[in-house]
Amino acid sequence: MSALRVNNLAISLDGFATGDGQSLEAPFGHAGERLHEWYVSTRFFHAQDGLPGGTLGVDNAFAEQHEQGFGAEIMGAGKFGPPNWQDDPDWKGWWGPNPPFHTPVFVVTHRPRPSIEMDGGTTYHFVDAAPSEVLEQARQAADGADVRLGGGPTVVREFLTAGLVDYMHVAQVPILLGRGVRLWDGLESLEDAFDIEVVSSPSGVTHLTFVAKPR
Amino acid sequence: MSALRVNNLAISLDGFATGDGQSLEAPFGHAGERLHEWYVSTRFFHAQDGLPGGTLGVDNAFAEQHEQGFGAEIMGAGKFGPPNWQDDPDWKGWWGPNPPFHTPVFVVTHRPRPSIEMDGGTTYHFVDAAPSEVLEQARQAADGADVRLGGGPTVVREFLTAGLVDYMHVAQVPILLGRGVRLWDGLESLEDAFDIEVVSSPSGVTHLTFVAKPR
Repeated sequence: MSALRVNNLAISLDGFATGDGQSLEAPFGHAGERLHEWYVSTRFFHAQDGLPGGTLGVDNAFAEQHEQGFGAEIMGAGKFGPPNWQDDPDWKGWWGPNPPFHTPVFVVTHRPRPSIEMDGGTTYHFVDAAPSEVLEQARQAADGADVRLGGGPTVVREFLTAGLVDYMHVAQVPILLGRGVRLWDGLESLEDAFDIEVVSSPSGVTHLTFVAKPR
Repeated sequence: MSALRVNNLAISLDGFATGDGQSLEAPFGHAGERLHEWYVSTRFFHAQDGLPGGTLGVDNAFAEQHEQGFGAEIMGAGKFGPPNWQDDPDWKGWWGPNPPFHTPVFVVTHRPRPSIEMDGGTTYHFVDAAPSEVLEQARQAADGADVRLGGGPTVVREFLTAGLVDYMHVAQVPILLGRGVRLWDGLESLEDAFDIEVVSSPSGVTHLTFVAKPR
């Protein structure tokens, strides 16, 4: 069965998955790269850039799951580009000509455009549909493999609310951003639908694993 | 040096230290006792009620610090009683004739009343003053011992903002309350002032230890 999985979604201690003031120069707003230092320190991330070294503990174990078993990704409009990227007909995402997805990617936006085929197996599809319909399309494209729900927080919240998420890994970083976009808003009693496991890392990050209960 | 310490302040994953709808019947509002199940399961808590058993791991190790080395407590009006307890001249706190504090307790309220001497060494003093002045009074009463900042979240936030907290232990419980009183609001970059250590427990609780950097 093709699962819908969230991996390596980083939040601050006060629950913000992205900072305030997102722009072309600051994709995560005033958060900068502070939510992802643990991630870029891992051997998994180093290897992607052809670099040696990197951490090998629990942070790396979680980081590695980011690429395992996926046949498609769903992402929100807020992840694909800076605010109002829809006004730029030439915008093709943050990730250059050979994006790191290597699968079909379904960008959820109220202003869809024709699909864009990139190098390395990534094709961007733009969809304006309810979560269940987007997931249905992504599942067909994934051809039996899992579907990654790649964020940001708003789209993750929508799919959680719709009861569609099978697995979620959240990395809580011990900083307080104070402002930005919260992950947890409007999700009262989410724990009723998930088994939750928690493990802290020497890096200071707390990894929370949510596994959906049978439904 | 007498330290100002917060111990065993429990919050939900979405940062609420108390629920919505606090009342005489529901001191923590719709949160009920869910933020404190790990605490009442410890041997420390069992022993206070004269009961055998209880957990002996990291949850208990933190719970036991609740009574070590304190000579006074500061608490907010929201902890001392249900909303508008100030209208009841006979209200003497939730904890009966022999409260578990056994020290002077300074209740911060805009409507102070005369001090109340209870059994077992607890005396309630009611003060309408800035955090630094309240702390000064509590330190004098503590006579060299530490001062406990007993909560709730609003008063803890005020003392954090004033830069007066030396140590803070927060227990994060993996539930989502969705509404209530948040601990973390308005504390952007709090990590700059503290060294933070994080450890997760098999109970699912994450213990966060904040130790103030030299200032």
